[in-house]
Amino acid sequence: MSTIQDVAREAGVSVSTVSNVLNGRTDQMRQETLARVQAAMSTLQYRPSTLARQLKTGQTPLVGLLVPSIANPMYGYIAREVETYAQERYGYRVMIGNTYRDPAKEASFFEDLFSQGVRRVIVISSLANERHLETAAERGMVVVSYDRRATEGERTRVDHVTPDNFEAARLATRHLIAHGHTRLAFATLTGLTLSRRDKIDGFLAAAQEAGLSDDAHVLDSGPVDEYGDSMIAENGRALARRLAADDARPTGVVAVNDLMALGLMAGLREFGLRVPEDVSIVGMDGHFLAAISNPALTTVQLPVPAMAAAMVERVMRPHDEPMPASEQALFTDITLVERESVARPGEASPRLRITKHSRTKK
Amino acid sequence: MSTIQDVAREAGVSVSTVSNVLNGRTDQMRQETLARVQAAMSTLQYRPSTLARQLKTGQTPLVGLLVPSIANPMYGYIAREVETYAQERYGYRVMIGNTYRDPAKEASFFEDLFSQGVRRVIVISSLANERHLETAAERGMVVVSYDRRATEGERTRVDHVTPDNFEAARLATRHLIAHGHTRLAFATLTGLTLSRRDKIDGFLAAAQEAGLSDDAHVLDSGPVDEYGDSMIAENGRALARRLAADDARPTGVVAVNDLMALGLMAGLREFGLRVPEDVSIVGMDGHFLAAISNPALTTVQLPVPAMAAAMVERVMRPHDEPMPASEQALFTDITLVERESVARPGEASPRLRITKHSRTKK
Repeated sequence: MSTIQDVAREAGVSVSTVSNVLNGRTDQMRQETLARVQAAMSTLQYRPSTLARQLKTGQTPLVGLLVPSIANPMYGYIAREVETYAQERYGYRVMIGNTYRDPAKEASFFEDLFSQGVRRVIVISSLANERHLETAAERGMVVVSYDRRATEGERTRVDHVTPDNFEAARLATRHLIAHGHTRLAFATLTGLTLSRRDKIDGFLAAAQEAGLSDDAHVLDSGPVDEYGDSMIAENGRALARRLAADDARPTGVVAVNDLMALGLMAGLREFGLRVPEDVSIVGMDGHFLAAISNPALTTVQLPVPAMAAAMVERVMRPHDEPMPASEQALFTDITLVERESVARPGEASPRLRITKHSRTKK
Repeated sequence: MSTIQDVAREAGVSVSTVSNVLNGRTDQMRQETLARVQAAMSTLQYRPSTLARQLKTGQTPLVGLLVPSIANPMYGYIAREVETYAQERYGYRVMIGNTYRDPAKEASFFEDLFSQGVRRVIVISSLANERHLETAAERGMVVVSYDRRATEGERTRVDHVTPDNFEAARLATRHLIAHGHTRLAFATLTGLTLSRRDKIDGFLAAAQEAGLSDDAHVLDSGPVDEYGDSMIAENGRALARRLAADDARPTGVVAVNDLMALGLMAGLREFGLRVPEDVSIVGMDGHFLAAISNPALTTVQLPVPAMAAAMVERVMRPHDEPMPASEQALFTDITLVERESVARPGEASPRLRITKHSRTKK
């Protein structure tokens, strides 16, 4: 295995220069020098002894990744993108923790990170109150928070990466309105995170611009589940029960995310309501599961690989580097993917009408 | 924060006794002494400085967890159970790596584990050839392999935790046969892991006992995907195309896992084949997504929480403790969950017939 001395020799630089590269102290370094060192590391497949480096800097080449639940397919998808990018671009591994949005579990994870010497953490869909993240940042942690935008006017040491949730929900709602829906609902989970708040605002804004504010309601699934995995069916059933009981029910529903949409579709079926004939649904995320549901789910596609890359790039920023001028990365590359779950009220999906095959011999 | 001295004082033992407990050297210790030390740690919420411990023993309280892809909802589910159990029972965190079943990526993960001082690893659904796992075990790693049984007659340093895949597939196949299916297929992914091999054997055994061997075929999805996540739709479509093209198509299909079953259902729909009227499908896993598909998926439930606990218990075994007498834990607590995707050939699901509501006012 190559040593730091081998790399220095290969690159034609001093050992301390190589050490500076390893520790991210490259502000004063000529780009060409940095490139030579990186090329030498690559050529020699240099793998620093992480224990030694940890002793020296107190740092482990690990990034912490905190999720409500890795069993939630969307968080699994994001985690995979983060891990792949961190590993391929920086050689970093990911230490993962499930929190079930329990503040005590989040705090425990931060303590473990500190005691492990890990100083970089990405927090997925945290609680609304980020005080504990700010505290960690003050203690020297580089913290990136996903899916929660920075609060305007507030100074923060926490970096934020988020999709434009307001626009995503507005796009979804306009799609329903364009299909003639005048009774609208936003189906969400109990518990108001900033992400959900922004989506609701986008939903209401679209309703208002079409003069439909009086018939645009927010429905939450009740105190069932906070982390969106195995309780998906119960959440959907709870919401579907309420829709089924309502004679003046909404015909167009925006779901807070794809999993909620899928659970809702299943719940509606239990109560004899058809999608899209009785209720049209638009999801949010663009998870691959949306492509294979029955009917296939119309949804808003979020740029997950790009956002994961941004999370990693931002969490890898050297400690002494100031926060980026923009306190957050807001991703607006969001598109509607039309599938089969939206039609005009009372109609079947146009896709179903034109693509249904009769049984053919080949 | 409490120190090791505080714990010793609280428990009325020496510091070296506490150190022995921390390092798993408890073979010579009286059970009552061990219990006193553990109680003291709990009372004081003792959290050993992991860097200090690492320096002493070269060990970090991390478990490595290697998966093909954490974006695969089933691996996400297993990973969540493993992480939760390891954290709550042992205070261990999980370092995760995605391998896409690439041998180079698996090897790289092991190197990183060693350089991190991590000596315990759980490998989910590894490649058929476990030589690299044996090598790691020889170098001092405690290795637990999930979903691959030990090869009979071969000595192994690797511990195995696996569901009884043969029985699971036989159960699924018998269910189809009991519903009158005489043309059977086992739908799988390209690439023969030991797990898939055992399932195929179970499928064929059930066919044989019913005299249906001549009409029981194995279909694989073609060289598309090895890690079961975003390619699910493509895999399903590839298989569905073949079924749709076959006039003497199987009417009863066992899918290698739930995700394959869901992808296949979507593919069949594209080709105008209905489930269960044209093709009945049984999945395997018992993932929560199986409950909300349309039709809801009949599947074989695996005891995931129990298996995850076993993986962690086995990976936490002290290094100098010999392998358990049984080289593997084989889980047979497997049950069929009947839903809506199986009916007699040509018929609709009985569940659909009796539970479909008309639109009722409340």
